[in-house]
Amino acid sequence: MKFSETFIPTLREVPSDAVIASHRLMFRAGMLRKLANGLFVYLPLGLRAFRKVENIIREEMDAIGSLEIKPSVVVPGELWMESGRWETMGASMLKVKNRTGAALVVSPTAEEAVTAMMRDELSSYKQLPVSVYQINTKYRDEIRPRYGVMRGREFTMKDAYSYHADEKSLDETYQKMERAYLRIFKRCGLTVIPVRADSGAMGGSGSEEFMVESEIGDNTLLLCRSCTYAANVEKAGCKPDAPINGAAPDTLPLERIATPDVKTIGELCAFLKTDATAFIKTLIYRAVNVELDLTGAPGSAQWKRVRPAPEAPAVYAEAFFAVCIRGDLDVNETKLAAALNAGEVALASDADVERLTGAPVGFAGPVGLTALPVIADETVAALHDAVTGALEKDAHYRHVAYGRDVAPWLAADVRTVKAGDRCPACGGELYEKKGNELGHIFKLGCKYTAPMNARFLDENGASRTPIMGSYGIGVDRTLASVIEERHDDAGIVWPMSVAPFHVIIIPVKYEGAVRSVTGNIAAALEKNGVEVLVDDRNERIGVKFNDADLTGVPFRVVVGEKSLAFEKPSVEVRRRGEQDVKLIPADSVGTAIAGMVFDELMKLG
Amino acid sequence: MKFSETFIPTLREVPSDAVIASHRLMFRAGMLRKLANGLFVYLPLGLRAFRKVENIIREEMDAIGSLEIKPSVVVPGELWMESGRWETMGASMLKVKNRTGAALVVSPTAEEAVTAMMRDELSSYKQLPVSVYQINTKYRDEIRPRYGVMRGREFTMKDAYSYHADEKSLDETYQKMERAYLRIFKRCGLTVIPVRADSGAMGGSGSEEFMVESEIGDNTLLLCRSCTYAANVEKAGCKPDAPINGAAPDTLPLERIATPDVKTIGELCAFLKTDATAFIKTLIYRAVNVELDLTGAPGSAQWKRVRPAPEAPAVYAEAFFAVCIRGDLDVNETKLAAALNAGEVALASDADVERLTGAPVGFAGPVGLTALPVIADETVAALHDAVTGALEKDAHYRHVAYGRDVAPWLAADVRTVKAGDRCPACGGELYEKKGNELGHIFKLGCKYTAPMNARFLDENGASRTPIMGSYGIGVDRTLASVIEERHDDAGIVWPMSVAPFHVIIIPVKYEGAVRSVTGNIAAALEKNGVEVLVDDRNERIGVKFNDADLTGVPFRVVVGEKSLAFEKPSVEVRRRGEQDVKLIPADSVGTAIAGMVFDELMKLG
Repeated sequence: MKFSETFIPTLREVPSDAVIASHRLMFRAGMLRKLANGLFVYLPLGLRAFRKVENIIREEMDAIGSLEIKPSVVVPGELWMESGRWETMGASMLKVKNRTGAALVVSPTAEEAVTAMMRDELSSYKQLPVSVYQINTKYRDEIRPRYGVMRGREFTMKDAYSYHADEKSLDETYQKMERAYLRIFKRCGLTVIPVRADSGAMGGSGSEEFMVESEIGDNTLLLCRSCTYAANVEKAGCKPDAPINGAAPDTLPLERIATPDVKTIGELCAFLKTDATAFIKTLIYRAVNVELDLTGAPGSAQWKRVRPAPEAPAVYAEAFFAVCIRGDLDVNETKLAAALNAGEVALASDADVERLTGAPVGFAGPVGLTALPVIADETVAALHDAVTGALEKDAHYRHVAYGRDVAPWLAADVRTVKAGDRCPACGGELYEKKGNELGHIFKLGCKYTAPMNARFLDENGASRTPIMGSYGIGVDRTLASVIEERHDDAGIVWPMSVAPFHVIIIPVKYEGAVRSVTGNIAAALEKNGVEVLVDDRNERIGVKFNDADLTGVPFRVVVGEKSLAFEKPSVEVRRRGEQDVKLIPADSVGTAIAGMVFDELMKLG
Repeated sequence: MKFSETFIPTLREVPSDAVIASHRLMFRAGMLRKLANGLFVYLPLGLRAFRKVENIIREEMDAIGSLEIKPSVVVPGELWMESGRWETMGASMLKVKNRTGAALVVSPTAEEAVTAMMRDELSSYKQLPVSVYQINTKYRDEIRPRYGVMRGREFTMKDAYSYHADEKSLDETYQKMERAYLRIFKRCGLTVIPVRADSGAMGGSGSEEFMVESEIGDNTLLLCRSCTYAANVEKAGCKPDAPINGAAPDTLPLERIATPDVKTIGELCAFLKTDATAFIKTLIYRAVNVELDLTGAPGSAQWKRVRPAPEAPAVYAEAFFAVCIRGDLDVNETKLAAALNAGEVALASDADVERLTGAPVGFAGPVGLTALPVIADETVAALHDAVTGALEKDAHYRHVAYGRDVAPWLAADVRTVKAGDRCPACGGELYEKKGNELGHIFKLGCKYTAPMNARFLDENGASRTPIMGSYGIGVDRTLASVIEERHDDAGIVWPMSVAPFHVIIIPVKYEGAVRSVTGNIAAALEKNGVEVLVDDRNERIGVKFNDADLTGVPFRVVVGEKSLAFEKPSVEVRRRGEQDVKLIPADSVGTAIAGMVFDELMKLG
């Protein structure tokens, strides 16, 4: 293809809102333009690279027997009402009423649509397992879209859905997906970190995320220095710490002390001349859509349990919890929500705190608290001779003994694990990275198939609910991440597999022998299946070199009169990202580069 | 691919709402399922055929140098406000408010989005012409979606947009598109009728539709028996008729007659013992968004002229017209709207008629009418000694003379042309067909580029507005039309180019030698690039034959023990749609069929 016949509007300026490399380079290289915040147009060069990623994903999905389908992007809202997610998906789901008043959704994901289709088709265990996927437009109304396509509002997702007769079959497909994902990212030239993850609003029993390290990543990852353990902070556990104050036996009686003008843990430490590890910090949380059965829990009689959809599990629309944790630690709200099987948790309002604890904010504690259930982080059980709030202004308890003075309704791991904590698998030291999620695979169980009433007859003729998995990859974000990982000051450095063109040929002047040799080399390459861009523009050579570097085409071939005049007429070949320029005879350069292109593609898998 | 490893849920039953062959067969052949009225899921077999059509379109667009891009499907509403179409597109456009209150549109077409992108990129005539296209999701909120994907709410459209420095350049691209469209439909095995068309809400100076004949077509086409003239009834003209009552000179004075209890033209004919061709029928129309300059026209002073967007042309939000036509003819509202350059026209309410004509409905006429402009169809000028309403209850005029008694503000061609009328090109007889539109190409002029303020500098450094064309093809509808044109009682009869597989191999029993020969033939075909489906199911041979016919795979190869035991082991080959079965040696059938497959593909172009 000739540069003059395509549309690659490269830029010297950087858009003012482009703070990360991929955003900057996709605009500068003429790959992408913006229609509005979070809404973009892929230009021809960008679309070529996008399609490369898309096709790698398609090939790997096909290779594991997943079947491509194409559901509509706009789907009926009633399907989301059936699953219960009409209410729980939150404001990022774009809901529309059409001219007839019917509720529609611009799909953010498609568990509902695919399950609605499948429930009509499934009848027998003989049809299972079945796995389908689409590569299609999705929309999530990000409140702060930024970083270009890394966090847009509309994006393309590969989303796959599998249906199974039993857990074992789900495990097999889940593992196939995991391996396919690793191959996909490897072929894209990406370094990904698979981490244990929380299932969040998707529900289900297990999930894994595929992360790329990124300074603007919105995920914190905990990795072990000694083993392969890696987890999202939303899921990460750690080895329990040694007991604190273990030397002090819990024999001293509980004592109430006056702590005037003390409000924070810091002030309390100063006042008692001790440190935060001796305190039981107590936070009051409000949770919505709690699935956990609270029957018999303190205060729970006042919370109504309802069923959002006929077949959906019953939930408490609202409930409150007192969450206790060692004073130097933070509660991880995602882990807390998972422990409660809640849609969402957040700190309660001051008014709720005062109503439930009978004291102003700052004096909550588990001792004598009866208005709501106490959830104790595992670190609380390891505390001895502890201090905590006395449910009264300017008062605390000391010599608090777990078991004697504190009897939680539920013990759970809700701490935010941090760098320096010990690996739960091997005890090694954990460290942190920031990551961006490219893919996420879920074991969903019957979270969708049960409320949507999918059924099949098993080998014994009994009607059962299929169990389900779902598996997503963000195509745009994967493409942007390739650029994040592979660029230098001059521009993009594409891996061969994602490069929009394999070779750019730059004739020094597009005329005479230079022009005809350029044509011959392009023809020789294209005959071998190599994708070639010929920079036939009437531009200075410096401009052409800069654009070649910026757009990141792997091989640059310069055709000039000088080296064509050599005894063996030659051209200059440079691999993008490398400094040295090779002279290769013009009549063999086509075959030589074709060989190198396919070698690199093979190496990527 | 093995039948057991894909998902082709064929059906014996026909969905109750499927009244046309393509809808019925796409469901029965396991290509498509419904999510809601007008919203569908393509299953694997359907998607394979869909992609064939998509790729044919892509190849032909690429071949004429149009460049593929990918704008978002959801676009900012403000772009539609700039063009003025936010108001004029009507209720079929799906408008959404997102969480921040921003107006969004789920694209029904993309003149606005692409022009918004282009205006930022265009600076010089050197960049022109440029032509871009997408193959992407569109949504139109059809009030009565039906006929499966033939008239769905969400669909995939190939939409191309071109920008030019002058009309000549637009003409060249328009003609390239026209030729590409003809090649696309030919390659799909479709018989299309290109017709002159109205530009409708798109605006612009010229347009052509590509129609397929269809009994459920929502377009009426007029075709000439003697020449190649073909037009949509919304645009069709005809040769003027001979003068009516031409023998009677316009010398008799205008005479007012009492016509008690006469309301319809039929009653008037009976009363006057004449026929409808002698009458000037007068209909009062209300028009909205009229661009035509009405300065000085009767009654127009009362209508306000406004500019819907700063750069958009001024329009009358509302205006009324008395439209006169020969009594036996009908006014074509699309032609009328085009003559007025109006957004929409419709018959005025009874109250408006009485207000404007001073008489009850049924007595309107052009003589002495001063409250609104009179538009006379060309047939009115050819009338002599005519009859018309006298703007008073129970009264008509006779001996009406055009020019003397009737002086229209505008003469125009607004009649609905019918079968039997004469061709405007050659005078031959016109006949009618019902058609479905598959594609539409438009010369848009500056309809979008002017209000959206796109500009470029011409060779003399002067700032000018680029002129634009737009070019659409409905991908789903094209696919469905292939099935409409190519099916029989047993199922689909695919053209090779659109067939989801080229060959289906049916082993009589999938075991032993039959199984290994099946594998060998499949391998030989696939090595040659032929797409093969192996029906490895443990089903009766009758079921497999029926499914092969239903899914319409062009070549059926039956592998059975009997013919494998021949001296020259053979298999049975049948071309779908033909009766005779050929015996071909098993070791050469791969090459033989591969040759036939590519011959057929070549023939389609």
